[in-house]
Amino acid sequence: MKTAITPTREENFNEWYQNLIVAADLAENSPVRGCMTIKPYGWAIWELMRDEMDKRIKASGVLNANFPLLIPIDFFNKEAEHVAGFAKECAVVTHHRLKMIDGSLQPDPEAKLTEPYVIRPTSETIIGEAMARWVQSYRDLPLKLNQWVNVMRWEMRPRLFLRTAEFNWQEGHNVFATHSEANEDARKMHKMYAEYMANVLAIPVIMGEKTVEERFAGADHTYTVEQIMQDGKALQAGTSHDLGQHFAKSFGIQYLGTDGKLNYGWTTSWGTSTRMMGGLFMTHSDDDGLVLPPMVAPYQIVIIPITRSETEKELNDYSHKLAEQLRAKGIRVLVDDTDARAPDKMWKWIKRGVPLRVEIGAKEMEDNTLTVTRRDLGKSSKTNVAVEHFINDAQNMLDTIQHDMLVAVEKRNKTMITDVKDLKELESALESGKIGFFRIKYDLTTNEEFDGLIEKYKISRRCLDDQDPSFVFVAKSY
Amino acid sequence: MKTAITPTREENFNEWYQNLIVAADLAENSPVRGCMTIKPYGWAIWELMRDEMDKRIKASGVLNANFPLLIPIDFFNKEAEHVAGFAKECAVVTHHRLKMIDGSLQPDPEAKLTEPYVIRPTSETIIGEAMARWVQSYRDLPLKLNQWVNVMRWEMRPRLFLRTAEFNWQEGHNVFATHSEANEDARKMHKMYAEYMANVLAIPVIMGEKTVEERFAGADHTYTVEQIMQDGKALQAGTSHDLGQHFAKSFGIQYLGTDGKLNYGWTTSWGTSTRMMGGLFMTHSDDDGLVLPPMVAPYQIVIIPITRSETEKELNDYSHKLAEQLRAKGIRVLVDDTDARAPDKMWKWIKRGVPLRVEIGAKEMEDNTLTVTRRDLGKSSKTNVAVEHFINDAQNMLDTIQHDMLVAVEKRNKTMITDVKDLKELESALESGKIGFFRIKYDLTTNEEFDGLIEKYKISRRCLDDQDPSFVFVAKSY
Repeated sequence: MKTAITPTREENFNEWYQNLIVAADLAENSPVRGCMTIKPYGWAIWELMRDEMDKRIKASGVLNANFPLLIPIDFFNKEAEHVAGFAKECAVVTHHRLKMIDGSLQPDPEAKLTEPYVIRPTSETIIGEAMARWVQSYRDLPLKLNQWVNVMRWEMRPRLFLRTAEFNWQEGHNVFATHSEANEDARKMHKMYAEYMANVLAIPVIMGEKTVEERFAGADHTYTVEQIMQDGKALQAGTSHDLGQHFAKSFGIQYLGTDGKLNYGWTTSWGTSTRMMGGLFMTHSDDDGLVLPPMVAPYQIVIIPITRSETEKELNDYSHKLAEQLRAKGIRVLVDDTDARAPDKMWKWIKRGVPLRVEIGAKEMEDNTLTVTRRDLGKSSKTNVAVEHFINDAQNMLDTIQHDMLVAVEKRNKTMITDVKDLKELESALESGKIGFFRIKYDLTTNEEFDGLIEKYKISRRCLDDQDPSFVFVAKSY
Repeated sequence: MKTAITPTREENFNEWYQNLIVAADLAENSPVRGCMTIKPYGWAIWELMRDEMDKRIKASGVLNANFPLLIPIDFFNKEAEHVAGFAKECAVVTHHRLKMIDGSLQPDPEAKLTEPYVIRPTSETIIGEAMARWVQSYRDLPLKLNQWVNVMRWEMRPRLFLRTAEFNWQEGHNVFATHSEANEDARKMHKMYAEYMANVLAIPVIMGEKTVEERFAGADHTYTVEQIMQDGKALQAGTSHDLGQHFAKSFGIQYLGTDGKLNYGWTTSWGTSTRMMGGLFMTHSDDDGLVLPPMVAPYQIVIIPITRSETEKELNDYSHKLAEQLRAKGIRVLVDDTDARAPDKMWKWIKRGVPLRVEIGAKEMEDNTLTVTRRDLGKSSKTNVAVEHFINDAQNMLDTIQHDMLVAVEKRNKTMITDVKDLKELESALESGKIGFFRIKYDLTTNEEFDGLIEKYKISRRCLDDQDPSFVFVAKSY
């Protein structure tokens, strides 16, 4: 059977992913190395994702703010582990002017900065510096901040959405009076991410703490949500860090306690990014293109009038009227009344993953019916229904799709997680080509042997199992 | 009379503005030269401003997208006027890694970029490059794009919100098949800005075209909305450019017409930024602090329970219940139940410009009344009203404030615009210390003499008068 995307997932998952992005018109590589341009359809998905996340962030008592893009180099020096983790991959601003020299624009040697700046790879340092000034007394705590911004990490092997030099994200930065409050909050945001991914993105996640090898540079504890892609690889989709007093001490975040003494605060940070979009696309899509959960679909319903010249105007008007009735119920609807051929329109919106596709021909208009197809189930779900019924049932159908998509992934994930009792069993599973996550006892005494397997099979420790932290999940990853 | 902000506007407008920003906790200078940190209260105002603008942008058929932060230097070379206008003030990225050298972090000499990048000062070039690929046929036109992003222009004399090295903005970039469509659209966005500023920010603007001296680098026509600050100075709050075919030709934006021939497109660009916040603050605020129009007030109503220890819990609960009833009507309400003293709370929210302040004491709770004060009118508006009545009337009161604030500025602006019949009259008005806008015949034959006055009195041509473009507005400006 011919599919809209070639190669198929089974033939070549990586190429399928690239072509999926082109077919759904989501993004493209830009002329800037490692940076992508997010096209309007992709950005519309991100806006919906962002707004849903932002609601949750605000509901948790966090305030949005905006900190500078550039960070003085000197700030990185202040936290030793942090600099080791991030200094390797930063864009460095060294001049503040261009000049025409020998007919070409070049950095003006006379405009060299005495102290270069780094484009933020993350903002613990610059926000830490501000918190040190903003926090004076226990009355100022907790202070919970977030920003939605672009960050930059030089990437040698960029991939659209999954790993790009510049990316958009939210980064939360909280400071507390005690370690227990900070740790509790880091876990709370971790749970919020898992809830968001299940309920908004229809993606069940594996929750757990990173092992010491995989921790954020400068954290005491890193909590992660890991998604399982259709090819069995892991995608780290969000992290929440308990930073202990590393940044509080480096930047002097101190508060006067009720006891009249100066104490260092305890900070956390937590982030999710446009990387989640890569996870969304790789989790749900099929060989005909994107499949979007209704909550993040720019158009939840597309109406395609099957026009012939004699009925064109009437059918288009009729479709727009139907769209208005659906919009009045809060549903996002597009009428595709362009002059493209009906099958071309149909495939365009299949590839773009619109949850419900409605087709109306002249005969159906007469009968007050329409044909509706669910994107997640495909042709087999095609039904002819009364217009009145559809208007009343549409939101319910969308809710059902949202729910069914989550259940489908939950079911698939079950086949993707294998318990192995020791390294030998792990190796033979990997050797046999088995894909997915492997759950194994986290045994530090066999770490060296473990590292050998990691090297050999390009796997990594994803996280300890929140259900039982004496086990660790291991998988290949994006 | 003691005011919350010192000095007052009359004593020293510039210092008053700086202190206003501190008093209302809106923003602060950051450790990065010329860049500001927008604090949570300031950012909450910006989010409301942005969302209202975004609605209008989307309603005009524009799609949001996201283009890279960095621009290859080479792109600037392609449009000669543009490079002359912008190359002077760019942040230049020359390295992609830091290295510890002699104990301090420095740009790694081995990670020098062969082609440096510039942090976008504006994105006509990088979007032009994409449009050249995205536009193929007349069917692809018009293509209307917008992005909400940070940009950077090195600023020698930064001022919070008004002029900062990094700032946040929306930049729209449209391409059309014909010049008349492009010009019409540039004017349409110009009108949209004026409508937005009147209806959302309660700021009436002067609309007009920039004279050739003040045009955007690379535009054929620049349409501007100019605001009049309380000290009579102009603030350019938004511009919309008809770029002719400058960028279409530089980047090869061509389409196959219905006639089967390749034609160059016609582009426009249009932008507004966090600078508008400076205009908002300087237009409405008074010597006691910020005054916010309800549409962009993070809290439209603040409820202050005047508690004594014996009534504290009951009064706080009562206030929260009232807040819930107001929120159910779509109003943004805060209950200040912190343990600060009531007068301190009162002044805090006066300084932050909350449109309606509600005070409730134990006696009022018993009587089912409350005391409400309008921020824009101050003490004289203080009234005791029945709670039931207030709940039903609150939205109406907010709408009235929104309307009255616009009318008040319209009235003040009338006193700020002076018609002068010639340069001599202009000079004597300026010499006498008269503030505001001056409207004078735009006469190119006296340009040299005019330039002398511009130099002497630090004024500039703000724009031609849209009502009669043979006249030009002249003023000092921010």
